[in-house]
Amino acid sequence: MFEKLWSMAKKAQEDRGFRQLVQACEGLLSERGQANMYALADEVVGRWIDLPTSRHEAFFAVLATQFAPDEQLVDQAITAYRDQPNPDTLAKLSLASEAPRQELLRRINRTGKGTATLLSMRVALLTCMRTRQGLNVVDADFLHLLSSWFNPGFLRFEPVSWHSSAALLEKIIQHEAVHAIDSWTHLRRRLDSDRRCYAFFHPQLEDEPLIFVEVALTNEIPPAIAPLIDIKGQPDPSTKPKVAVFYSISNCQPGLRGVSLGNFLIKRVAEHLSTELPSLKTYCTLSPVPGFGKWVDQVDASDLPAFQREQLTLIRQWHAEHAPLNQSDIALMPKTVETALNNCCAHWLVNGSHQHLSDPVARFHLDNGARLERVNVAGDMSKKGIKQSLSVMVNYLYDLDKVEARHEAFIQGIASHSSQVKKSLKA
Amino acid sequence: MFEKLWSMAKKAQEDRGFRQLVQACEGLLSERGQANMYALADEVVGRWIDLPTSRHEAFFAVLATQFAPDEQLVDQAITAYRDQPNPDTLAKLSLASEAPRQELLRRINRTGKGTATLLSMRVALLTCMRTRQGLNVVDADFLHLLSSWFNPGFLRFEPVSWHSSAALLEKIIQHEAVHAIDSWTHLRRRLDSDRRCYAFFHPQLEDEPLIFVEVALTNEIPPAIAPLIDIKGQPDPSTKPKVAVFYSISNCQPGLRGVSLGNFLIKRVAEHLSTELPSLKTYCTLSPVPGFGKWVDQVDASDLPAFQREQLTLIRQWHAEHAPLNQSDIALMPKTVETALNNCCAHWLVNGSHQHLSDPVARFHLDNGARLERVNVAGDMSKKGIKQSLSVMVNYLYDLDKVEARHEAFIQGIASHSSQVKKSLKA
Amino acid sequence: MFEKLWSMAKKAQEDRGFRQLVQACEGLLSERGQANMYALADEVVGRWIDLPTSRHEAFFAVLATQFAPDEQLVDQAITAYRDQPNPDTLAKLSLASEAPRQELLRRINRTGKGTATLLSMRVALLTCMRTRQGLNVVDADFLHLLSSWFNPGFLRFEPVSWHSSAALLEKIIQHEAVHAIDSWTHLRRRLDSDRRCYAFFHPQLEDEPLIFVEVALTNEIPPAIAPLIDIKGQPDPSTKPKVAVFYSISNCQPGLRGVSLGNFLIKRVAEHLSTELPSLKTYCTLSPVPGFGKWVDQVDASDLPAFQREQLTLIRQWHAEHAPLNQSDIALMPKTVETALNNCCAHWLVNGSHQHLSDPVARFHLDNGARLERVNVAGDMSKKGIKQSLSVMVNYLYDLDKVEARHEAFIQGIASHSSQVKKSLKA
Amino acid sequence: MFEKLWSMAKKAQEDRGFRQLVQACEGLLSERGQANMYALADEVVGRWIDLPTSRHEAFFAVLATQFAPDEQLVDQAITAYRDQPNPDTLAKLSLASEAPRQELLRRINRTGKGTATLLSMRVALLTCMRTRQGLNVVDADFLHLLSSWFNPGFLRFEPVSWHSSAALLEKIIQHEAVHAIDSWTHLRRRLDSDRRCYAFFHPQLEDEPLIFVEVALTNEIPPAIAPLIDIKGQPDPSTKPKVAVFYSISNCQPGLRGVSLGNFLIKRVAEHLSTELPSLKTYCTLSPVPGFGKWVDQVDASDLPAFQREQLTLIRQWHAEHAPLNQSDIALMPKTVETALNNCCAHWLVNGSHQHLSDPVARFHLDNGARLERVNVAGDMSKKGIKQSLSVMVNYLYDLDKVEARHEAFIQGIASHSSQVKKSLKA
Repeated sequence: MFEKLWSMAKKAQEDRGFRQLVQACEGLLSERGQANMYALADEVVGRWIDLPTSRHEAFFAVLATQFAPDEQLVDQAITAYRDQPNPDTLAKLSLASEAPRQELLRRINRTGKGTATLLSMRVALLTCMRTRQGLNVVDADFLHLLSSWFNPGFLRFEPVSWHSSAALLEKIIQHEAVHAIDSWTHLRRRLDSDRRCYAFFHPQLEDEPLIFVEVALTNEIPPAIAPLIDIKGQPDPSTKPKVAVFYSISNCQPGLRGVSLGNFLIKRVAEHLSTELPSLKTYCTLSPVPGFGKWVDQVDASDLPAFQREQLTLIRQWHAEHAPLNQSDIALMPKTVETALNNCCAHWLVNGSHQHLSDPVARFHLDNGARLERVNVAGDMSKKGIKQSLSVMVNYLYDLDKVEARHEAFIQGIASHSSQVKKSLKA
Repeated sequence: MFEKLWSMAKKAQEDRGFRQLVQACEGLLSERGQANMYALADEVVGRWIDLPTSRHEAFFAVLATQFAPDEQLVDQAITAYRDQPNPDTLAKLSLASEAPRQELLRRINRTGKGTATLLSMRVALLTCMRTRQGLNVVDADFLHLLSSWFNPGFLRFEPVSWHSSAALLEKIIQHEAVHAIDSWTHLRRRLDSDRRCYAFFHPQLEDEPLIFVEVALTNEIPPAIAPLIDIKGQPDPSTKPKVAVFYSISNCQPGLRGVSLGNFLIKRVAEHLSTELPSLKTYCTLSPVPGFGKWVDQVDASDLPAFQREQLTLIRQWHAEHAPLNQSDIALMPKTVETALNNCCAHWLVNGSHQHLSDPVARFHLDNGARLERVNVAGDMSKKGIKQSLSVMVNYLYDLDKVEARHEAFIQGIASHSSQVKKSLKA
Repeated sequence: MFEKLWSMAKKAQEDRGFRQLVQACEGLLSERGQANMYALADEVVGRWIDLPTSRHEAFFAVLATQFAPDEQLVDQAITAYRDQPNPDTLAKLSLASEAPRQELLRRINRTGKGTATLLSMRVALLTCMRTRQGLNVVDADFLHLLSSWFNPGFLRFEPVSWHSSAALLEKIIQHEAVHAIDSWTHLRRRLDSDRRCYAFFHPQLEDEPLIFVEVALTNEIPPAIAPLIDIKGQPDPSTKPKVAVFYSISNCQPGLRGVSLGNFLIKRVAEHLSTELPSLKTYCTLSPVPGFGKWVDQVDASDLPAFQREQLTLIRQWHAEHAPLNQSDIALMPKTVETALNNCCAHWLVNGSHQHLSDPVARFHLDNGARLERVNVAGDMSKKGIKQSLSVMVNYLYDLDKVEARHEAFIQGIASHSSQVKKSLKA
Repeated sequence: MFEKLWSMAKKAQEDRGFRQLVQACEGLLSERGQANMYALADEVVGRWIDLPTSRHEAFFAVLATQFAPDEQLVDQAITAYRDQPNPDTLAKLSLASEAPRQELLRRINRTGKGTATLLSMRVALLTCMRTRQGLNVVDADFLHLLSSWFNPGFLRFEPVSWHSSAALLEKIIQHEAVHAIDSWTHLRRRLDSDRRCYAFFHPQLEDEPLIFVEVALTNEIPPAIAPLIDIKGQPDPSTKPKVAVFYSISNCQPGLRGVSLGNFLIKRVAEHLSTELPSLKTYCTLSPVPGFGKWVDQVDASDLPAFQREQLTLIRQWHAEHAPLNQSDIALMPKTVETALNNCCAHWLVNGSHQHLSDPVARFHLDNGARLERVNVAGDMSKKGIKQSLSVMVNYLYDLDKVEARHEAFIQGIASHSSQVKKSLKA
């Protein structure tokens, strides 16, 4: 595998633009680069921007091979450590085994445009990794450094509102990944006085949200998404909200894949809102269950406990009779099927949330220390909702005093859930 | 040595506040800490603030021992790598040999106050290291992370002016390390229309300059400091400045020792000024030579070339006759002594700048790619100036197109200097 | 007339909310009000907001009568002045003849919400004046004070861009009065890199533009509006613009009717752009001729010079044959008709611009010191454009060095125009 | 008197710079000026700046005569009004009797630098008025317009703190008129966490405070100034303040003489602090009594009631024995003299506050609706304090609910005072 990368990297050197980029990287890492790091980092940035997409793979091959640790130095360090195992020889071993490309990336980051460049490199790298093996060590270095630099302690936490710039709001429309925002009028509803939106920003990336979350302020834990985003909805100024509902959370920077910020954002918002609005008592989500439809289709019923097996059969029969499902099928669903969906979904999320086929949204919130609060059949009547989850949505509840214990339970295989959910499981 | 650290750390555990800090650190690094990192990082910050100074050493001993790499894991990783030397086993070795305290520091940094806390820990650590051995590996980890986080690409570069807040200007007065600022009136002169001041700031440290540089805009390369900082001086609005003189550069954060920012700041300022004031043609310093007096006193004359030996004798005779030197001695100095000082200083800086006894200011600028431009006898008539350098100041010249080549020459043992300086050497 | 106002005002006093507003006004003007002006002005503001629209007329009647100058005091001041005509008795006469409602309005303005309140009062007053006589003296006082407070020297001049807040941009869409903005996508085109938008703001009215102007940066004086606002248009980064075209200017505050700001805004923008973009050589408009269609219809041909009479006949025949006109009629218009439209429009604007039936846009620009540069048949193919002006648009040219002289010429009855226009007149 | 002004104005016309200024003013007011008001207003500003001080008087003479109302027009307007007295003829009379210089000043204000220019003109005018009669009508017009433009509703109200710019703080030091600020260290004490400072700013005058007030947050109504401004004083973080003490209020713009802002500032601060610090229950001043010493010296004892006459005699004897008074005399003052000072001062302030010789500070606060709360002998031990007021300071109490009634009482001749003060009067 590595031989292939070496030969690819060598071949590409024939190309002038490519060679100049690699030379700029070498220069930036060299002794000579010390005195002129700004200018050299700028050069790397410029040459990367000019590099044709077809050369991306070769560039990452160079990072994987030429900018890998020097094996001879690693061997010497190992020998020295084995001879005299002490903190100093160990530190030297650590140093020798760190890939020089890490220092290269740090130096690229010294110029003002460095951060944006590294994010764009990472996006390209993730694309290349789909087809090319051996680049995972490069990606690990990117991820390691980006995690350190996109530290929540460095980020600006800011409300997004109708007073934010159109340039920023346009990105909110563009990156909303859960419930699409169809127009500026729809966006405005989501920024009204009974809604909130918050984002993290990096000091080097002006007007570029990293991740944002949308919140509805309500009086009850809501069972369905439509009323929350309906543009005909109106704030009710007469009551103080009791519940903050996180109904959408979206990442905006594909280059930050794997850098976990959602967890921090939700807790930061909860903390912020509890100060601003003391009337709030409950923090929960209204979340999709994107894998549920597939699970209903594909799960081997014989793997299930008897009770769930029956329920599943009921669902499958009903589904078969009405396929393809549409809104009116959901609206006219028999009570028995509704109960079956509720029970099966609860079972799948609680008992299956650690398994391979499980739901990523559930894993995210349970791992953050939330508990599964309620399953809502007919919560999402959109086409996508009916297809992906047979219309089911769920609420996860965040109780800040308990997230630590619940996270630990989850790590040990236990998905926290409410007594209401517990009943469904046994019913 | 390590045994001592272990026993010190163990003993300290008896103390409640200390134990709570260590437990908070353990909690933050633990699995359970994942879900509540904000709150736990805040707890570490609070407990560190409450820790009595007398326990600092023990805390760093804990970081050095308990939060060191797990030797067993390192051994396994070495074995695995030796069995199958490939990028993946190497990456795992790198991971195993990184001290867990690095991840601890990263997590502390996730809270808003984290950055300031880590700087205060580093200050304490540097103090402890004066008397306690074995903490250098801990310091290496601090330095590694701080260098990555106090990356010039992340820092705000900003002018400091009379329109800056008093809270900030007070810190400029306090941290000026080269030519003390005696009053707000003196400060005001340094911020007048023919002076400039620039600083780097970190987004998390509001109103806290990291490093600042003071610049005078003049018509010629200046030979002496007094006229530049005299409060009776007046801007001359009739002429456009030709020379930008860096006459003082000061670090404000002792916790950032070893994180090199001065180099970047000087070049950033030069770039900024060249855009703002196209009339500027020359960028230079007016710098002290703090070790020159001592060198004159202590150098073994027999190590010197014949010409310098003569000159040195002349200086020593004159010095002996007039000790202790005062301002009028400098003013009345015979031309022969002046020439001797000039020649000896030039010799010392050019030929001695790589040696152990050499001048740190010279090393800094020459390493940055500047060249020694001129030696000015009677450049600094202050008590400190007469004592430390027999009144000598020097100019280093920054030519942005040549810093890269000059830096590399310096690395190979050659200190760049002007033809005028060259003449002194041979004279 | 005044008796009617008095009786209306008296009758309304029976109503509680109304009486409270009048009492608050009396209190604010009274001696007692001196010490508590803030609170009392706030009360007036609150009571005005609560006043039902049906009572507006009565309130302005109170301002017209009860808060008019005291006739007895005026008489005494006249007598004193006639006895001893000197600056002091004259000053007292001036004081006595100023309506106390002016001081009332000044005091309302002392509270933070005062300015917005006065604007809303003025809007209501203008509405009432349509049906009720005798309020013009009240309006004169409003206009006098608003002119003084909405002084261009106090206003913030600011670019409006895609980085402005959505709350502001929404108002731009809403108030655009010349060429409607159909969507946020259309707005975005008007804020692209080859377009500009500027507005005046008042310090007390955050995010509330008073007036804004839209500018296109082009290479030639444009003959038609469609290409300028077409969302498929693209900035051409390869050329530097030579012409700044003011293609739309809109007032946003109906309460400021009669406060002339457009004049200042155009000149401020020209000044601003000439600094930002030295490549700009020409400042002109692309303006509608809203009254031209009507004039063609209604003018008594016998009042026209022989040449124009012939042209008019030609236009009327063509019009009669194609009524109602549509886009393809304009596109297929015979050359002779095009020439006739051009000549007649030039004639009307140049020779008729001081008359009663004339064009308000022409009067505005000619009075500002612009000259009529060119007449463009088929400049506006929109329905409105075809109906109002038979598709004609014109360019007015602003030459900042000549606006003073051209304004004065206009005052003396001469409408400045280019040699090209002059030819049309004689042709 | 007016003839003198005319001849002075005529004579000055010979001077070129002067003539150019007057011509620029004429141009700005003329019809031609309409189209180019910006440029012409800028010209007036420039020519005023260049006008030598020796010509100021002549310039104001021109304003007084040439820019006075046209007597013929006034006569015609009077005749028209007498013929048909109605709102329209009255409005025309009002217009005719307004001096054209008002419109001139309004137009000067249209340029960005206009406001600052008008303030500088007013300062010059006030100087000229000391020696030259007949300019009062000009000043009345200035005052009228400045009052309208420096309306509290237009001003920014802002805290001044150690985070304000040095450029602003320097002006606080410079303009403090009551208790001089000796150094930046002294200033810092006045901006510490138990002190506050607030100012009004005009949008056109960046970094130029118009008026500022200094406040101490304490637990009791303080009897003496020294502890409040002592740089050795320390905030006590353990208690919540109960009393806000306005201990200094200073105007910064001599050109705004007669524009009353202090009243508004005090009430704005009280309102602001009551929101920020709900623990505050009392708002009072600690004020000098600048005219008291003179009154004790000069008052005709036979005008006083018997009781006060005795007290006054006591004071005069003691004073005669110790003249000139110094700090230790105050410290050793017999109890009887202390009581006599207390009683006499209370008497003077309560019964004499409407008279000619009375205290301006008392008049200011009583007119604002405050009441005299307490007389403090030995409140100000500074040289100035001993000389001007025999060391006495007083507290005025602001009760926002009662300022309106107390102001009205004051207008009717009654100075509100506490029961404690009442006792002194009768004792």
